[in-house]
Amino acid sequence: MSKGFRTFQAALNTWDTQLYFPTPTSFLQDWENNIQEAQKRFKATTPTQRAALLLRIASFLQQDKLDIQEVYCRESGLSKERFESEFARLTNTIFVFAEHIQQFSWQKQNILPLENKTLLKKRIALGPVLVLGSSNFPLAYSTMGGDTTAALAAGCCVVVKAHPMHVGTSLAVANCVKRALQELNLPDRIFSHVIDNTYAWATTFAKHPQIQAIGFTGSIKGGRALMDLAAQRPRPIPVFAEMGSLNPVVICSDLQIVQIETIAQQLARSICTDAGQFCTKPGLLLVDATHFETFKKLLLEALATLVAVPMLHPDIYQKFEACKRQVFQVKGVKPYQSNVNQDGLKGLWGIAQTTPELLLIESTLLEEVFGPFAVLSPFENENVLQPLFEKMNGQLTISIFTNNALDIHPVLTHFIEEKVGRAIINGVPTGVSVIEAMHHGGAYPASSDARFTAVGPDSILRFTKEVCWQLHQ
Amino acid sequence: MSKGFRTFQAALNTWDTQLYFPTPTSFLQDWENNIQEAQKRFKATTPTQRAALLLRIASFLQQDKLDIQEVYCRESGLSKERFESEFARLTNTIFVFAEHIQQFSWQKQNILPLENKTLLKKRIALGPVLVLGSSNFPLAYSTMGGDTTAALAAGCCVVVKAHPMHVGTSLAVANCVKRALQELNLPDRIFSHVIDNTYAWATTFAKHPQIQAIGFTGSIKGGRALMDLAAQRPRPIPVFAEMGSLNPVVICSDLQIVQIETIAQQLARSICTDAGQFCTKPGLLLVDATHFETFKKLLLEALATLVAVPMLHPDIYQKFEACKRQVFQVKGVKPYQSNVNQDGLKGLWGIAQTTPELLLIESTLLEEVFGPFAVLSPFENENVLQPLFEKMNGQLTISIFTNNALDIHPVLTHFIEEKVGRAIINGVPTGVSVIEAMHHGGAYPASSDARFTAVGPDSILRFTKEVCWQLHQ
Repeated sequence: MSKGFRTFQAALNTWDTQLYFPTPTSFLQDWENNIQEAQKRFKATTPTQRAALLLRIASFLQQDKLDIQEVYCRESGLSKERFESEFARLTNTIFVFAEHIQQFSWQKQNILPLENKTLLKKRIALGPVLVLGSSNFPLAYSTMGGDTTAALAAGCCVVVKAHPMHVGTSLAVANCVKRALQELNLPDRIFSHVIDNTYAWATTFAKHPQIQAIGFTGSIKGGRALMDLAAQRPRPIPVFAEMGSLNPVVICSDLQIVQIETIAQQLARSICTDAGQFCTKPGLLLVDATHFETFKKLLLEALATLVAVPMLHPDIYQKFEACKRQVFQVKGVKPYQSNVNQDGLKGLWGIAQTTPELLLIESTLLEEVFGPFAVLSPFENENVLQPLFEKMNGQLTISIFTNNALDIHPVLTHFIEEKVGRAIINGVPTGVSVIEAMHHGGAYPASSDARFTAVGPDSILRFTKEVCWQLHQ
Repeated sequence: MSKGFRTFQAALNTWDTQLYFPTPTSFLQDWENNIQEAQKRFKATTPTQRAALLLRIASFLQQDKLDIQEVYCRESGLSKERFESEFARLTNTIFVFAEHIQQFSWQKQNILPLENKTLLKKRIALGPVLVLGSSNFPLAYSTMGGDTTAALAAGCCVVVKAHPMHVGTSLAVANCVKRALQELNLPDRIFSHVIDNTYAWATTFAKHPQIQAIGFTGSIKGGRALMDLAAQRPRPIPVFAEMGSLNPVVICSDLQIVQIETIAQQLARSICTDAGQFCTKPGLLLVDATHFETFKKLLLEALATLVAVPMLHPDIYQKFEACKRQVFQVKGVKPYQSNVNQDGLKGLWGIAQTTPELLLIESTLLEEVFGPFAVLSPFENENVLQPLFEKMNGQLTISIFTNNALDIHPVLTHFIEEKVGRAIINGVPTGVSVIEAMHHGGAYPASSDARFTAVGPDSILRFTKEVCWQLHQ
């Protein structure tokens, strides 16, 4: 067994050992028999009642925390520390959303005395939402993750398709949701959970006339397939898919050497934390030529001190190695990667040094490599970056390191306004705050709809619509 | 020449007389050369600057009002009274939006002191928008109509494809927009205007990588074609298409006879005003059985007193007659229509009496007939309507006439929350107020995305996105 996933053989066994069986097709009939009534009753709840549901779910998650941790670490190979931070993120999101919906202004009113009428616009649930669990966040973007929490906060019933790589975690979390629904005497079909190691359930629900929206976090291929399915329905529905991103980093000329050292260390950690398996992992480092050699040396030094952790799944690891190889094979690219130690765990990371000219002609260099990997290039001045930004896809983030935060180069600001969801000044892209000012999205294919965020309370708006009541006297 | 369009031969001549030539394909090169710079500059304007632009446009429209009126009436066959009301609607929308964007909270901020960072989320323009002029609102939903005004208010450049039925009106209005841009020294490519009696320009722009959104008002066929084009792009873009609607009306049992008379008169006018060429024209009248015969008699009497106006275009008139015939030919339908007078103008309207059972099995009866036409059916009690509502498509509106405004039957409220954008209690669906509480949209195919409104200042949100700036200390 190769380095990168040897500590979590259990994940591999998920299907081999038949621990978890796919949900039988007979489930659909039960769902269809009950979903309309469940959605009707859930829509009729008040924000306070929905907040109570969310908080009850959080409290059951707290109760079951140790059990969830055990299966989470076993299935994903992620560390206990990572579990702690992701669990905190999960419950924090629930708390923030529960608070938000009670304060949110769900309606707008206009009284038109001359016309003797009153108009009241109410924001209500869009209807049942299909959520696809992500591979890289078994908690925060899966069963009761950002999409489900947003949908429940809005009053939408949810069908979660568990990600096949962490079905046990998904079941443990789903169990908490189901208990909360039971305790509050709410219909159990408000939350449904299906298991599947094919595309069958995802396709069935994506096409189902009762499903009104889809939430997805994953690959461009997967997200686009869902977008296409949704667009081809007799009655199309919105999809919010959060897909790939390179998360370019720009290191400007005005920095001091001492700052470069700190930045190199920050970026090394940002690239490698949890084996770089984040949608916000920095994947393209553009460094002003004056600092390039210094930065490269410091980055490689910092990377050399980091100990790799196993990747989430053998498939992900194999894909990572294949993509890394593909980039390294591009003519003109200078490859750097860790030496494999005897324990097989040192390393994993790769850095591909290139040039702005090569970036412009080699599309492979502008494709996301999921894992601890980044493309590194010097640039003479920001104007050189313009054609590169024009070629580049939409991005979740850009990070800019500079001492002139108030005077960002117009080439950068233009790129940000055209294609980027979040611009980080003097910080790394990993670490997404669950707050109102967050925007986690970006032009396609960073997300399927740049108008909505996947993180923060505004993400609830993905799953609401408005109805105007117009009363005549 | 048949009744219905004989007073506006000029409209027919639009293309025959070669008054207006299609925009040559060479235009595209000029547009491509300038759109990015124009969008960059327009995005950088403040809401106050954009409000100034909107108000300047309104003032040029006022200056040219008489010229616009002349070509509007000549091309559309619509009356001067209708021109006055549509012109007021047009300028009012501009005023409301100009006011709104100056008060709107364009950003959200969170300061996270523990993490030493500040997040600022700004709402900005989505990018260039393609707007397709509608046939039935030469002013309010065309060149400088709701979509264009919303897009300009957001800071998006606009390409308008003039509706071929009123190219002269479109040119006259476009001229005002162009003068305002010139006077304020803004790039002229902020607003572009193309003429075309085929689908060529619409298709070219709908597929163009620079176009970031589409606004459309018209048929389901046209709207869906645009949705499909947009979804198939390498980088899909959002489409807001406002398409067909039956606008069902429900007349409840609790009303008094004297009320029925008023309602019959209101509905007769709502069906026939401007030859029923409104997306909100009531097209399905469901009347409680106890009032059915009385209502029918009063409605037919009221209709008999109305004088028809010509339809917008011979094509629309012919399609109206064909659709009306199709419904009348359904077995079991009882047709009512006006007697044609010697002047050929009396009438136009049609009423098709049917039953709830027939509505359930004959899909033809549930398709919009654009023009002064409605399907009329009695019902025994609201529960009978449930399967009908389940079968029915999404609707822009429903009107409910009742003395128990606070106790709407659950079958109706459920239908409203599932599929309807606006519920009018004791009023007709025609007449849409341009205010914040308005929602003009609905489940597909009333609109392509139930989450957005086509009318009122919230319609600006169709054409904005958010960017988060995250600053680290």
